[in-house]
Amino acid sequence: MKITRFIPKVLFGRKHFNDLNRFIGDICPSKKRYAVYIIDSIHQTTGLFERLQPGKNDMVIEFNASSKEPKTSDIDSIRDQIVKQKAAQLPHVVVGIGGGSTMDVAKAVSIMLTNKGSAENYQGWDLVKNKAVTKIAVPTLAGTGAEASRTTVLTGPVKKLGINSDFSIFDGVLMDPDLLETVPAEQEFYTGMDNFIHCVEAMNGSAINAMGKSFAIQAKAAVENFFLKEKNYEELIVSSFFGGSSIANSSVGICHALSYGIAFLLNYRHGIANCIVFNQLEEYYGSDVVTFRKMMDNHGIKLPVNVTADVTAEQFDTMIELAYKLEKDLISALGPDFKNILTPEKIISIYKKM
Amino acid sequence: MKITRFIPKVLFGRKHFNDLNRFIGDICPSKKRYAVYIIDSIHQTTGLFERLQPGKNDMVIEFNASSKEPKTSDIDSIRDQIVKQKAAQLPHVVVGIGGGSTMDVAKAVSIMLTNKGSAENYQGWDLVKNKAVTKIAVPTLAGTGAEASRTTVLTGPVKKLGINSDFSIFDGVLMDPDLLETVPAEQEFYTGMDNFIHCVEAMNGSAINAMGKSFAIQAKAAVENFFLKEKNYEELIVSSFFGGSSIANSSVGICHALSYGIAFLLNYRHGIANCIVFNQLEEYYGSDVVTFRKMMDNHGIKLPVNVTADVTAEQFDTMIELAYKLEKDLISALGPDFKNILTPEKIISIYKKM
Repeated sequence: MKITRFIPKVLFGRKHFNDLNRFIGDICPSKKRYAVYIIDSIHQTTGLFERLQPGKNDMVIEFNASSKEPKTSDIDSIRDQIVKQKAAQLPHVVVGIGGGSTMDVAKAVSIMLTNKGSAENYQGWDLVKNKAVTKIAVPTLAGTGAEASRTTVLTGPVKKLGINSDFSIFDGVLMDPDLLETVPAEQEFYTGMDNFIHCVEAMNGSAINAMGKSFAIQAKAAVENFFLKEKNYEELIVSSFFGGSSIANSSVGICHALSYGIAFLLNYRHGIANCIVFNQLEEYYGSDVVTFRKMMDNHGIKLPVNVTADVTAEQFDTMIELAYKLEKDLISALGPDFKNILTPEKIISIYKKM
Repeated sequence: MKITRFIPKVLFGRKHFNDLNRFIGDICPSKKRYAVYIIDSIHQTTGLFERLQPGKNDMVIEFNASSKEPKTSDIDSIRDQIVKQKAAQLPHVVVGIGGGSTMDVAKAVSIMLTNKGSAENYQGWDLVKNKAVTKIAVPTLAGTGAEASRTTVLTGPVKKLGINSDFSIFDGVLMDPDLLETVPAEQEFYTGMDNFIHCVEAMNGSAINAMGKSFAIQAKAAVENFFLKEKNYEELIVSSFFGGSSIANSSVGICHALSYGIAFLLNYRHGIANCIVFNQLEEYYGSDVVTFRKMMDNHGIKLPVNVTADVTAEQFDTMIELAYKLEKDLISALGPDFKNILTPEKIISIYKKM
């Protein structure tokens, strides 16, 4: 019996960032509350920092998402910083303001405030024991779906793997399409494609059900509309929310499996790593790869080339191993016999084209 | 600032009715809990009554939804029955099993267990003061959207009007597509059209935003697919959930405004009343009315004729008055000047065609 959790409260619409404090108050009505804001450093330059109105007991913590994806050690150290500074009382609410990385940090910190040890102990499925601190997302990038999913992608000392838990689900999401308009064009594209690609994988996998499919169809159509026809930021931000909402009722597929190696060993960000891989998967995702290339052309996107030129045989082995870790997803994409279809040789031949 | 509430927990999939008790336990973990089940009498004949497994303290209450739409007096009397029988302790959870009417009864009873007076005092917008008892929906009809919306349609002594409240939102929904397969063909059609019509109205109204639109587009497409191409019950039950989820971020329109009079004075059920009206609205909803007629033809549906033949001038006045009560919706459909477009004469001329 798999119960799907959806975001219970959403505040949607332009200019609603101004209502953040009232939204927090609705979700967490305690008068004595204090909040921890975790905000992408980039917002020092976009004006969001100035628009935040923390109370005098609130903490504002920057996360430099541009320089790195979150590590389990980052989570531990933010948690420790909060506990040290506020020994008497845990925060009542954690607010994540940024893209997928920053929202994932907020999720993971809210969990690690009530669960012992290091975040790396919880990388995996349903390992979290205790209810997390209440948390709220304010996405400022559209496409990761982190605002609506139970996944919290973290890089640990030995693996890149999510904390997948019902306790990762946000208690509320504030979606203000205005916040998307300061995103640089390339980042907007790669993040949008993250959504497009997980929808394509979901819809082509056997693990999807009608609930996941209904969200994915609509999310994918909206991304295509945005990058091929009309730049409608309202629709784009909803599309990301829908994409994230589809994840619990579907799986990813070949692209995510192969992109983890690119990200982990070659340090590409998740969005661009997905694009580099997806561009070589016409054999599996046919017309969707053609549509993807059309969207690239429309936006003058040039993918990096010769990405794997210096990869050693040993590194390829690691990348294959990482890909095969997404067993459930590869079964959904290719069937239980996936290792005889997507053989190590086949994986290397795909990687070599990148 | 309008916060949208979505259903926080969903159990989706065939045969999951068998997991109802575990689902209740997940949402309401107290060991001492007792539940009140409100179930459509029709399920005496479908086998669902036998499959219910109430605990020894639970109450099972039948609601004869086939014979009537719920009245405020029904709610009061069910509430009184529960309080009388279980004076010591309110139920921990109310479970509504049935179509829109039965789910609405469950919503309203859960509210009236914690709010004083008669249900008729709460017909309107945001009049409910106290948090309701936890409640769960098990839809056995697809299309009303009651499982996902904050509306609770009730007929009171002086009006047919919903209790519209955040406290009407279910805490969990169990969607088992198997339960749809015993629905008689005509009822399946009219209920499906309820969904189709509110999606059409939503998408053609100015009150919709991108959140409402994303749900409505997908819901409408799935209904068309079901009645024109392939009878996929998984998709149909999700479509109803999506249709209901769109309501808080959109409005209804001309069809609902005119259908209330047909339902209130001529005793047609909501689904069929909508169809009778929609069939005459080609002027406003053009190609969607054509699609609607195609779906009717495909399923051999014959609408009643001469419906308004015996309506008196006085009754028409009441029907016009009822229609104009949906002011917000008519503004969304036709603009602030709606009374000069949809004049009383125009309304009567439309009614006379039915």
